[in-house]
Amino acid sequence: MAVQTMVIDCHGHYTTAPKELLAYREAQIEGLKNASHIPSKGKLNISDDQIRESLENAQLKFQRERGTDVTIFSPRAAGMAHHIGDATTSLHWSQHCNDLIHRVCSLYPGNFVGVCQLPQSPGVPPANSIGELERCVNELDFIGCNLNPDPSGGHWTAPPLTDRYWYPFYEKMVELDVPAMVHVSSSCNPNFHATGAHYLNADTTAFMQFLTADLFKDFPTIRFVIPHGGGAVPFHWGRYRGLAQDMKRPLLPDLIRNNIFFDTCVYHLPGIELLLKVVPFDNILFGSEMVGAVRGIDPETGHYYDDTKRYIDALPLSDEQRRQLFEGNARKVYPRIAARLAAN
Amino acid sequence: MAVQTMVIDCHGHYTTAPKELLAYREAQIEGLKNASHIPSKGKLNISDDQIRESLENAQLKFQRERGTDVTIFSPRAAGMAHHIGDATTSLHWSQHCNDLIHRVCSLYPGNFVGVCQLPQSPGVPPANSIGELERCVNELDFIGCNLNPDPSGGHWTAPPLTDRYWYPFYEKMVELDVPAMVHVSSSCNPNFHATGAHYLNADTTAFMQFLTADLFKDFPTIRFVIPHGGGAVPFHWGRYRGLAQDMKRPLLPDLIRNNIFFDTCVYHLPGIELLLKVVPFDNILFGSEMVGAVRGIDPETGHYYDDTKRYIDALPLSDEQRRQLFEGNARKVYPRIAARLAAN
Repeated sequence: MAVQTMVIDCHGHYTTAPKELLAYREAQIEGLKNASHIPSKGKLNISDDQIRESLENAQLKFQRERGTDVTIFSPRAAGMAHHIGDATTSLHWSQHCNDLIHRVCSLYPGNFVGVCQLPQSPGVPPANSIGELERCVNELDFIGCNLNPDPSGGHWTAPPLTDRYWYPFYEKMVELDVPAMVHVSSSCNPNFHATGAHYLNADTTAFMQFLTADLFKDFPTIRFVIPHGGGAVPFHWGRYRGLAQDMKRPLLPDLIRNNIFFDTCVYHLPGIELLLKVVPFDNILFGSEMVGAVRGIDPETGHYYDDTKRYIDALPLSDEQRRQLFEGNARKVYPRIAARLAAN
Repeated sequence: MAVQTMVIDCHGHYTTAPKELLAYREAQIEGLKNASHIPSKGKLNISDDQIRESLENAQLKFQRERGTDVTIFSPRAAGMAHHIGDATTSLHWSQHCNDLIHRVCSLYPGNFVGVCQLPQSPGVPPANSIGELERCVNELDFIGCNLNPDPSGGHWTAPPLTDRYWYPFYEKMVELDVPAMVHVSSSCNPNFHATGAHYLNADTTAFMQFLTADLFKDFPTIRFVIPHGGGAVPFHWGRYRGLAQDMKRPLLPDLIRNNIFFDTCVYHLPGIELLLKVVPFDNILFGSEMVGAVRGIDPETGHYYDDTKRYIDALPLSDEQRRQLFEGNARKVYPRIAARLAAN
């Protein structure tokens, strides 16, 4: 690796937050059971030392060990649980989670840059999330958001991402020049295991929605990151090329060029090899999702499954390709990261 | 390829059926709109010549051109549409579709062996499909069935495949010694494109359901084919190995050994390479899904996307591996095929 390449991990969640965060959420959910309860935002009492402690032996340790410089960091995805409560529930919860990410980024400005959770709620128009997006970008220096295509948590009751239902929110994304990672949360449908099915299904579903509509004619500069290596898409790249061809849609590299990006959260070398073989290099961002869905060490390699940098390092890439994958593409997709890195 | 290997394609649907079949279905659906309409099974008028014509320039031509000997053949998957009407609607429709497959297999006993559609319906227990399974296996010489894990067509309202809800049907599968291909149908949820999202999501979902439960302790000999190369699973094999490990579940090769099989319906060489690299050879069946989801010719190769045999032929496999993939594994998963092939 050329020494001057910065390694930006585009996909990290605060999965190790102090237990007070979970206690807040549990109390909030408990309050929902009482019909006469008047919801209030309430307080979260977490000290800076608690935050430091929650990161030092987890994300920061792994950054050091794995050679990652900075993580684009957002609240725990499974914790968003937009299907619980209503829009007020989600707003209070999102604000606390986002404020906590802001504190992380302020304590470790060289290690973390923020991406926000949105106060989505089933049946509530996405426009309702514009205020929190603006607050996070304009006041907390966040550089993107996680957009849940299924706030119902596995019942898929919202319109597809290409529906005009989402357009007011997209207009704000474009105006602020921030991308969205398409990321569902936990599933309340017993058919879908969250990290083993729901997440990957959502990635696959979103890609096919984008393939079948002209969203990017309406929003030529909008950018979506489809995480977990794009779900099933790279493995079925031939199927998608063929479907696009049968439907007289654009060639996949043209379809995704400026608008769709996959991360590298694929936890074995053959998967990463495939991803890098079929998806254009311009459309792949380094990501690990650490500390996330898979916590263990792979007995076949002796290394953490989610140490995705090792798989990439094992491939014969050019310096230019590595620069794109580890830094250049992330800077392109998240342009606001430049000011954050410069400020540090 | 060793000349004595028979090439069995485990995944073909009668997508080219004479238009009278569709006309029957349209009339059936039209009848549902009239509350006073008394459903009757009705007649399907299709001649043997029409059946021959529907196959000669499609499945049979491709078998000859591609060197496939026999196709395990079932009604069009998207056509099952279990979400339409009720159990009676599905029963009449399934019986006609299955009878038509039986006629195909009788006209071309060397080319096709039957697998049945089931009369599933949302909210109706799977036990209700036992009668049609028995009829197809015992009277029509079928060797398996397509089981829809989501009869609601994209709303996922049924219990997971590992729930006891499905057990009475599984008992009959085991008794008859026939496997099920886990195969959804069309989607009435606008989020899910059928062949580009719903099918692959169902494959991924089913695998994760199997991974998280002890179904195969209760049914040690039951066999499921997960089509479309297993959805997202092989691409994320590391993720699944890691999830199984974190959850203290069996190693994947042990989990799937006698019970879960993937087909090769993956429409590009890098995908097939990955599949054969990570999934044990014992658990892969040759399949093409032709004439199916993708009809076109890949401009990058000059060959049909769904000519999956070409991808396999391009790989340096041993004769023994080819025999397993093209014939041996299918004979193991569908033991009743032996009598059909011998009868021919």
